[in-house]
Amino acid sequence: MTKTDIATRVHNHTWKLDPIVRSLIDTDFYKLLMLQMIWKLYPEVDATFSLINRTKTVRLAEEIDEMELREQLDHARTLRLSKKENIWLAGNTFYGRSQIFEPEFLSWLSSYQLPEYELFKRDGQYELNFHGRWMDTTLWEIPALAIINELRSRSAMRSLGYFTLDVLYARAKAKMWEKVERLRELPGLRISDFGTRRRHSFLWQRWCVEALKEGIGPAFTGTSNVLLAMDSDLEAVGTNAHELPMVVAALAQTDEELAAAPYQVLKDWNRLYGGNLLIVLPDAFGTAAFLRNAPEWVADWTGFRPDSAPPIEGGEKIIEWWQKMGRDPRKKMLIFSDGLDVDAIIDTYRHFEGRVRMSFGWGTNLTNDFAGCAPKTIASLKPISIVCKVSDANGRPAVKLSDNPQKATGEPAEVERYLKFFGQEDHKEQKVLV
Amino acid sequence: MTKTDIATRVHNHTWKLDPIVRSLIDTDFYKLLMLQMIWKLYPEVDATFSLINRTKTVRLAEEIDEMELREQLDHARTLRLSKKENIWLAGNTFYGRSQIFEPEFLSWLSSYQLPEYELFKRDGQYELNFHGRWMDTTLWEIPALAIINELRSRSAMRSLGYFTLDVLYARAKAKMWEKVERLRELPGLRISDFGTRRRHSFLWQRWCVEALKEGIGPAFTGTSNVLLAMDSDLEAVGTNAHELPMVVAALAQTDEELAAAPYQVLKDWNRLYGGNLLIVLPDAFGTAAFLRNAPEWVADWTGFRPDSAPPIEGGEKIIEWWQKMGRDPRKKMLIFSDGLDVDAIIDTYRHFEGRVRMSFGWGTNLTNDFAGCAPKTIASLKPISIVCKVSDANGRPAVKLSDNPQKATGEPAEVERYLKFFGQEDHKEQKVLV
Repeated sequence: MTKTDIATRVHNHTWKLDPIVRSLIDTDFYKLLMLQMIWKLYPEVDATFSLINRTKTVRLAEEIDEMELREQLDHARTLRLSKKENIWLAGNTFYGRSQIFEPEFLSWLSSYQLPEYELFKRDGQYELNFHGRWMDTTLWEIPALAIINELRSRSAMRSLGYFTLDVLYARAKAKMWEKVERLRELPGLRISDFGTRRRHSFLWQRWCVEALKEGIGPAFTGTSNVLLAMDSDLEAVGTNAHELPMVVAALAQTDEELAAAPYQVLKDWNRLYGGNLLIVLPDAFGTAAFLRNAPEWVADWTGFRPDSAPPIEGGEKIIEWWQKMGRDPRKKMLIFSDGLDVDAIIDTYRHFEGRVRMSFGWGTNLTNDFAGCAPKTIASLKPISIVCKVSDANGRPAVKLSDNPQKATGEPAEVERYLKFFGQEDHKEQKVLV
Repeated sequence: MTKTDIATRVHNHTWKLDPIVRSLIDTDFYKLLMLQMIWKLYPEVDATFSLINRTKTVRLAEEIDEMELREQLDHARTLRLSKKENIWLAGNTFYGRSQIFEPEFLSWLSSYQLPEYELFKRDGQYELNFHGRWMDTTLWEIPALAIINELRSRSAMRSLGYFTLDVLYARAKAKMWEKVERLRELPGLRISDFGTRRRHSFLWQRWCVEALKEGIGPAFTGTSNVLLAMDSDLEAVGTNAHELPMVVAALAQTDEELAAAPYQVLKDWNRLYGGNLLIVLPDAFGTAAFLRNAPEWVADWTGFRPDSAPPIEGGEKIIEWWQKMGRDPRKKMLIFSDGLDVDAIIDTYRHFEGRVRMSFGWGTNLTNDFAGCAPKTIASLKPISIVCKVSDANGRPAVKLSDNPQKATGEPAEVERYLKFFGQEDHKEQKVLV
């Protein structure tokens, strides 16, 4: 006999909304690390974040209902840091450090609310902007992306019957487990979940994280998702992102300040954090330029996260630089996190094995890979390349060059100015899938 | 927030038994058709049914706990036909006929109880016998097998964690769906579920039946499981089995009666049933002998179910015989049901397409195929070749020869006598997997 829980059933029938983001810490850990730095060092800076759908062929405003999108964004704005979350952030150890978050910061965060959003449609796309103080707007990046992506999967699956859904998830689970079994064969692998922003859904991300925890054991070094880290007793992982050099560069008044911006950010970071958190993200304005101009002390940092060059090529350039600076790469760390699938992870791992410490941040291909799982191809189940980037700081345009022009963001004239200023060596077009 | 149904949770913690067989009609439909005939024509005959594990390498008494087995068998003995089941059997149409079951028969069935069992261990195997009137013992065949097989899967899975189980079933679902997609490509296919006796579990059989219903639509012509047919609004399918000629042959007092036994059964059957239920099961004492001695009227029956020769070879022999008897095979039906997997179904279908009407009864490979689904090979998840056969009738030994010596049952001396009597042409050793 099937027992029916009447309350749950009625609740399911009558609720208005199935919220996608249900906690302020359902976000990437590095956002909190960066937020504390912004709150401490740049509390007066304004920064606008804007949604950018790089997959132009997908017309988001036709796939996602505007009312539903507004309801989800509105719901996210009702979230506050819970007492339990606050206590956990204060009491937990991150990267081996206790009290990484200052009591004053957590106190401020406990009354934090996501600020207002600006939403309208243009040419079949959504324009979604967040204006305000940097320390207020920055936290929108992850929930905004997670909401857009999950609304898209929900809309893709709306036409599927119960049974087809059952097979869809069964196949996705079987497919995920094949990946787990392949990864198991790499001794000493270190891999973590970076898939929050472009996940298929929260529940599916949770399943994938649990699959890795169960399936590869200690090789799974954690998740960037703070909520999942708390709930599943995993390490919260992640360091910093492009928004730091992008804002500091945008604020630069002189060429000197612009040239110094990428290193200024690292100095700031070093004042707050240390050890394994000293990871350089070198490609904001091109890795070649970054390395060419880098001060000696950058070579003392724990590692680099190449994020837009092909992993083997990008990794080799950094190793070469460490050697030039007289450092032993075997004591250094490379973190790969750009559009990785299992093949890329295995190839990269085998290539660098024994030559450098490595860690992999596995994103969209972990938490949103449903290719071949639906009974027929459903285009809108395929992840898109979508980001939420800082677009201006104190009213001045912000720019990211990256090593791949496809991933560049900013006003074209300003991108041009940065390209001239930092140089274009190693700038190389590559297809961006996610 | 996860809602917990406390009542269900506590119930799950405290119940004594999770019954495997929960209804008397969780059995094969042909058992009920045969039962009515036995009840009508052979009410005074005694027949013993005995469990036979043909996979000797699997030591059942070491895999299955005796107390658990007794609890399940005891629970099955508490079952009675429910009012709803009785009404459905009386009011439903089977094979296009209403009131296929006589009111007197259903009235008798409504107070029917599975008779006592005899259980002991010998050489690592269970000896499980059911003694009594044929009309009482016959219904034990299916629940006894289902209980043994599901206890075996439960014991195989006892050591698996929640997560591994989740992946196991996800893979099994994905695997099942691959089969569905291959079967979809056969236009005009007719296939039904014959997988009750050797199913992995009741719930898994139900899932597979629902998968076929959803996945191949009208090509899925029904299930042999009466309960699933009722619950899922499917046709209940199946006609008759070896026990009929086996018992009638065992009762034979003279060589004439023995020679006539296979045809006597068909005459009996024809008195009770007609139309699509007129399916000959020719191999009880060898198909060649059956065809050689068959009276003319056997060629008027709707079809044959070759059950032990390789399907293409067996089907060709029957088609040849129909042609010799001047019948058009295109108006006849062949039902294939012996150890089929998808490859065998497709090969057989392609081979006979357009030459004869065909139907497939898909058994163990449908409801118990977990090969490659567990994280590591679990031997006890692999189905075994296990049957529950009539072993004597009124104290005289019963024999089945079949076309495959591996599937023969009965005392060796008696098997020898039958072989001499019926002849051994076409008797051919083949590997029996399930």
